[in-house]
Amino acid sequence: MRQFQQKLFCSVPEWVASGTRTLARIGNNQLHYQVGKGRIAPDRGSCRRWILSVPSSPSSHHERDGIQCGSQVLRGPTLHDLAHFRSILSRPDRSIITTLTDEASQRQLSSDSRAEELVRYNQDWTGEYRGSSSLVLRPTNTSEVSSILRYCHENFIGVVPQGGNTGLCGGATPLHDEVIISLEGMNTIYGIDGQSGILTCDAGAILENLHSFANERGYLFPLDIGAKGSCQIGGNVSTNAGGQYFFRFGGLHGTVMGLEVVLPDGRVMHLNMENVDDYGTIQQSKRIASHRKDNTGYDLKHLFIGAEGTIGMITKVSIACPALPTSKNVSLLVCDSYCNVLTVLKTAKEELGEIMSAFELMDYNTLSFVFAHGFGGNESGSRLLHDLLQSESSIQEPERLRPLYLLVETQGSNSVDDASKMDTFLTRLLDSETIINGFLAQDERQLKEMWTIRESCNPCVAQAGCVYKFDVSIPIEDYMEVAWEVKKELSVSMKDVDLIACVWGHVNDGNAHINIVTPGRFKKESAIDKNIEAAVFDSVLKRSGSISAEHGLGQKKNEALGRIKGENVLDVMAQIKGLFDPHGIMNPGKYLPKKT
Amino acid sequence: MRQFQQKLFCSVPEWVASGTRTLARIGNNQLHYQVGKGRIAPDRGSCRRWILSVPSSPSSHHERDGIQCGSQVLRGPTLHDLAHFRSILSRPDRSIITTLTDEASQRQLSSDSRAEELVRYNQDWTGEYRGSSSLVLRPTNTSEVSSILRYCHENFIGVVPQGGNTGLCGGATPLHDEVIISLEGMNTIYGIDGQSGILTCDAGAILENLHSFANERGYLFPLDIGAKGSCQIGGNVSTNAGGQYFFRFGGLHGTVMGLEVVLPDGRVMHLNMENVDDYGTIQQSKRIASHRKDNTGYDLKHLFIGAEGTIGMITKVSIACPALPTSKNVSLLVCDSYCNVLTVLKTAKEELGEIMSAFELMDYNTLSFVFAHGFGGNESGSRLLHDLLQSESSIQEPERLRPLYLLVETQGSNSVDDASKMDTFLTRLLDSETIINGFLAQDERQLKEMWTIRESCNPCVAQAGCVYKFDVSIPIEDYMEVAWEVKKELSVSMKDVDLIACVWGHVNDGNAHINIVTPGRFKKESAIDKNIEAAVFDSVLKRSGSISAEHGLGQKKNEALGRIKGENVLDVMAQIKGLFDPHGIMNPGKYLPKKT
Repeated sequence: MRQFQQKLFCSVPEWVASGTRTLARIGNNQLHYQVGKGRIAPDRGSCRRWILSVPSSPSSHHERDGIQCGSQVLRGPTLHDLAHFRSILSRPDRSIITTLTDEASQRQLSSDSRAEELVRYNQDWTGEYRGSSSLVLRPTNTSEVSSILRYCHENFIGVVPQGGNTGLCGGATPLHDEVIISLEGMNTIYGIDGQSGILTCDAGAILENLHSFANERGYLFPLDIGAKGSCQIGGNVSTNAGGQYFFRFGGLHGTVMGLEVVLPDGRVMHLNMENVDDYGTIQQSKRIASHRKDNTGYDLKHLFIGAEGTIGMITKVSIACPALPTSKNVSLLVCDSYCNVLTVLKTAKEELGEIMSAFELMDYNTLSFVFAHGFGGNESGSRLLHDLLQSESSIQEPERLRPLYLLVETQGSNSVDDASKMDTFLTRLLDSETIINGFLAQDERQLKEMWTIRESCNPCVAQAGCVYKFDVSIPIEDYMEVAWEVKKELSVSMKDVDLIACVWGHVNDGNAHINIVTPGRFKKESAIDKNIEAAVFDSVLKRSGSISAEHGLGQKKNEALGRIKGENVLDVMAQIKGLFDPHGIMNPGKYLPKKT
Repeated sequence: MRQFQQKLFCSVPEWVASGTRTLARIGNNQLHYQVGKGRIAPDRGSCRRWILSVPSSPSSHHERDGIQCGSQVLRGPTLHDLAHFRSILSRPDRSIITTLTDEASQRQLSSDSRAEELVRYNQDWTGEYRGSSSLVLRPTNTSEVSSILRYCHENFIGVVPQGGNTGLCGGATPLHDEVIISLEGMNTIYGIDGQSGILTCDAGAILENLHSFANERGYLFPLDIGAKGSCQIGGNVSTNAGGQYFFRFGGLHGTVMGLEVVLPDGRVMHLNMENVDDYGTIQQSKRIASHRKDNTGYDLKHLFIGAEGTIGMITKVSIACPALPTSKNVSLLVCDSYCNVLTVLKTAKEELGEIMSAFELMDYNTLSFVFAHGFGGNESGSRLLHDLLQSESSIQEPERLRPLYLLVETQGSNSVDDASKMDTFLTRLLDSETIINGFLAQDERQLKEMWTIRESCNPCVAQAGCVYKFDVSIPIEDYMEVAWEVKKELSVSMKDVDLIACVWGHVNDGNAHINIVTPGRFKKESAIDKNIEAAVFDSVLKRSGSISAEHGLGQKKNEALGRIKGENVLDVMAQIKGLFDPHGIMNPGKYLPKKT
């Protein structure tokens, strides 16, 4: 790791272990980690109904019987339904997990073990959202997905499509006793076209496996997010995931070329995806084909990108991959003001131009938590973190005086040209004293360590306490203002609660992840939640921002949508939902506000 | 203009005028130019109705009275309607052009002059499509568009939204006596955000003006097509135009950030476009804001991108512009086989990587027509064309033996690095004898000349005879096969008709413009049209291609859609149309097949 010329603060020639972790202790907080331990009680009846029009807390897992949901009553699955699902699945023993106790399920596992296994489908990774589904189906092909949905549609059974269950808004977690359809059993990668670079795979393919598959064939998969080890591409597309490569390769609306989608009534649509039949089977002796350009009617696939499984279920995805870059550079920079961050961004656009592939910000509070919780096992990373944090010798108040950290990456096709561009860029920053310190990765290992720091923000901050998470778009010039403003306001209105505001995200996209932590308090408290949300949304909306940038709505922001969207837009959204899902079985109670 | 080292054919050190134009004379054809001269007879009644379910030829301009269109009867505008439109338009004298003879219209122009003026709205630039609209409205703001549409919706009056009228599928040309709503009066460019690079403008803004506006502020407008001097961004978005920059910056689904849309019933929607009210007015002391990331519900704007005005009218557009490149290189290369074109493409991806911004192909027949018709007034361009065509000393048969020409462009941020990359690229091609000749532009003027050659393909080929035009997506390895196969097949089945196949387009996108010319025969003949279309579509579809890549459907390909799309997809498209436009007033008789 080469640390380039320092002009102001840090004088150590290389990363040095700090020996202590006091930097991460902000205020008087006990920083414990607590994994959500919710269990679903397997005390199910044989026919349950629930209502969605009664307001309920997002994490509620109580059932409500026989009440109207709009004009429809949805119900949970029964033993009769289970028998039907067994008949339509080709490998029922492996495809069904249930606490419904029919003879076949009793042969498999004990009631307790089945309940235990259901937990990971019923609960999101943060432990914040928890449903009470008694049945998980894991189909192995499109035809099975179609049969399941058709049956649920005809019988008014609620359904929750689920990918890797890594979302942050509870979109993949049941509210009640919906049938969870997990696509983990559908993960074939069909190939990548050698000329067009278009990769086609099942929706259940794990993002990291797609990275490896593409890399081995000379391509780069154009989506990268922290959860790549377990998230699935179908979930990524359904939530319109953004991530760090959005900067360079744009969003999924630009890169997704084709989709196979199963509609709630079981019909299968192939949208710019040729040679696949209505059962999802590839036509004999042909390859799946998608085109970069296809103007044959309404481009319906875009409706499903970001629809969070509310109007259909994505079962196959085609995505255009750019050529794998042969050269990569990553630097970590320290700025002492947001004004200087903007200067770094401007300079990067001028000097790095088309090779810039990421421009990520982390604030001081975030990095302190990463240092405290993320790098115990990695000495080299800890040393780098220590040096970064040491760039500022003491914790300044207010937060706007604390340093900000930038991860700037380039990806290109010529290592000599790219290194020279990065050098020119860094030299300009140092000469102009725009940054107070910086590190440039010298090899692949150091490059990965820098990215690990960035990707540790989410899990490390979660170890500090309960995190009230917000994913928003803000005009770039106001990127840090929302968090600072909210913190200042809450320090007055909620002065009894210790709060720490952590910000990280994608500056150039105006996409900030604002995380308000209550250190040492691990249980989400609805009064606190309500106050923080009101303050964040007010601050975002008065800046003409968006309350959801890349994480989606799920069960977290659907009601807020009703307050911020114009009536005309809400009406049309509700009509679209009604058109595709007239029985309202798909991911019920989420995404759109209930009043629509 | 530097002509780099030649290894095979051409030995002239610089462009040399040819003196003759025999190269462009293929076969025994008389190459005359004939402008379509259609006139609309101003003999209108006061209330007319037409039917859309009766099959009609695409260029029919006959009216049909009082017959059912599905479940609805649409009608043309009357004097009563005209009076209403006068009352809702702020500047009726400038906003209305009509052959309906009320007192006010008589004050303006003579009946003949008004009919003459209507022609340019009723007819497309190729002269192929012609409608018989008696009324053009040119609203000046969103509120007027809304009032017009609401009235037409309530009164079952057909409407044709029209931008620059430069389309190639008759999508903006009336079929009957629809009211044409032209957006040429709405062309304000509101500005470009200095941080995000997002430009916002009215839908009627001319593409070339957007280029200049963006360039002057350090940005590049990410869409470029040959018709930029007259096409409007609203029309570009409505047809999901592709163009030469698609290669680098992707399509409009990726770059369009926000839209203002007026629905057929007059409701206005703002989709990721903040601070504009329901009248299309910017909120006091605010700027229009769009975000690069916005996941707040179904991303409805994508339905309108490429919908050709069939479900609403786009009135404002926000689009993300990349930084203006500081360095540009263009080369024109000659290959003697398509196999070598693919090698050039592979080499370009390796050597030019992220700076490649265009990879355009033209075949020999096309370039011969450009030479014959396009460069009379430009000696330098003619010399270049002559040298390019001279690379092959005689016209080979069959066509697959004739040379192919490539325009390869780079755009980057470092002129030294970029020039070096282009040099390495060209040296590799020459060393490996992948190209038989090539030219590298030495200055801005030569660079423009090369692009002029490419942009002259369309108009120059149109001067040779009637052109049967096809815009298709084909797997890249088969890019030239379709045209060659069709030509061979038609040489047998239509041996009395002299046909020349011209191909140009965007190789890396798999997007070929196949133009079958009947030299000297300028009138479109439906029997010939039918035969050629059948041959082209068969050849494209058996290669799993798409029959519309970037030009859209209009009144040219809507019926074909019914044959190629699956029933489920067609049903959903028809439902979407019905949802937004229940009275079927928007661009009636186009886009979707009539049976839906």
